[in-house]
Amino acid sequence: MALQKETPRLVLASSSASRKAVLEAAGLRFEAVPAAVDEAAIKEACLAEAIPPEDAAIMLAEAKAERVACRMPEALVIGGDQLLVCRMEDGRDRWFDKPADLAAARAQLLALRGRMHRLISGTVAWRGGERVWQDVTVSRLTMRGFSEAFLDAYLAVEGEAVLSSVGAYRLEALGVQLFSKVEGEHSAILGMPLMPLLRFLRGHGVLME
Amino acid sequence: MALQKETPRLVLASSSASRKAVLEAAGLRFEAVPAAVDEAAIKEACLAEAIPPEDAAIMLAEAKAERVACRMPEALVIGGDQLLVCRMEDGRDRWFDKPADLAAARAQLLALRGRMHRLISGTVAWRGGERVWQDVTVSRLTMRGFSEAFLDAYLAVEGEAVLSSVGAYRLEALGVQLFSKVEGEHSAILGMPLMPLLRFLRGHGVLME
Repeated sequence: MALQKETPRLVLASSSASRKAVLEAAGLRFEAVPAAVDEAAIKEACLAEAIPPEDAAIMLAEAKAERVACRMPEALVIGGDQLLVCRMEDGRDRWFDKPADLAAARAQLLALRGRMHRLISGTVAWRGGERVWQDVTVSRLTMRGFSEAFLDAYLAVEGEAVLSSVGAYRLEALGVQLFSKVEGEHSAILGMPLMPLLRFLRGHGVLME
Repeated sequence: MALQKETPRLVLASSSASRKAVLEAAGLRFEAVPAAVDEAAIKEACLAEAIPPEDAAIMLAEAKAERVACRMPEALVIGGDQLLVCRMEDGRDRWFDKPADLAAARAQLLALRGRMHRLISGTVAWRGGERVWQDVTVSRLTMRGFSEAFLDAYLAVEGEAVLSSVGAYRLEALGVQLFSKVEGEHSAILGMPLMPLLRFLRGHGVLME
C-alpha cells in the first residue's frame, strides 16, 4: 500500500533546493515548478502599507501557488515563503532579504548578532482555481555574540552558500555555530513547516491517515 | 583562521552514524572511536534502583566517554546517550530500547502511538582522566493516532533502517509522518544536542568564540 495517493498530483511552486529537500526527506512525491513572481515588489508594497509580516508571508506564498495553479488546475499546488524579521535597537522591526553578496551577508549577520529574530513561514495550497489551505508558522532563533574573527572564518568556509538563505546562514550546516538558541520545528526553519503541511495532506486525502 | 583548534583532538566515543552526521554537519573535525560498553546492563541496574532517566542517560554517556578517555588522556572525549521514556496508561514510565526486529518495531510504535514521549540526551566530556562537562537535554515528541494500515506501509518503506533508532523512527526521513508535534532542538533529537555542546567547546577553547 502506498503512503501517498496518485491523484491529485502534488506540485511545489518553488525552485528552492531547501524546500525540495525537506519534502523529499519526508517521503513525498511531487514535482517542483518555479513560480515567476516579483517577490521584491510584493515585499515593498507590504512594507509601504505596514502589512504585518505574517500576512505578507501568506501573500508571497499565495502569489507563487496561484501562479502555478492557474496552469495546473487539477494539481494540488503548494506555495511557501519565509520572512526574516528582527526587532532592532530602535524598537522597529526590520525585514531582511537574501544577501546579494558576501559583504552584504557579513553586514546582515552583524546586524542579527546577539539578537533574537523570527522566521515567519507562510504556506498556501491551491486546487481547482482556489485556495484550499493556509498556514503561518513562526520560529525563533537567537544569534550569539560571536566575534568578528569568527564571522570572517565562518564566511571563508561557507562562501557563497550563505547567499541562498534569507538569514545568510544554513542551520543544517556550519551556520548552527552562529546560534545560542533555536526554537521551532526544524523543517519550518529550513523553509517548509512539515507538521501542519502533513496534517493538511492527510486531511485532504493525499497521505494515509 | 580555523574555526577549530588543532589541540586538543576531539574524539566522539561512539559508532552511531546519526551522532557522527550531526557533528560533521556542524563543521567539527573529530575522530569516532566506538566504546565497548554493556549498555543493557547499565540500563537494567538503573531501572532496578529506580534511578531517574536523566541520571541514567548521564551514566551511560559517562561510561562511553570514560572507556575511550582512558586510552586517550590527551584528547577531549565526548560521550553521548539517549533514552526514550514514555508514560503509559498505567501512569508508569516505560523505557524503550532499540527494537530487535521489525515485529518489535511495530509493537513499539503502536505503544507510542497517540502519546507524548521524551528523548533524554545525556552528554559528557572527559579530558585528562576526569569529567570536565556534562549536559542533559530533553526533547518532547508526540505521535499522532496513525492507522495500522499507515504503520504497515511505513515499515514496508523504511524497512530495517528503523532498527537503528531507539524510537524505531528516523525523524529526518519518513518517520516525520508519525508525529503531530515535535518540541526540541533538531540535533538533540538526532542524538547529539549541539547548542550546549558548541557552547562548551567554545568555553573550553576548542572552537572560536
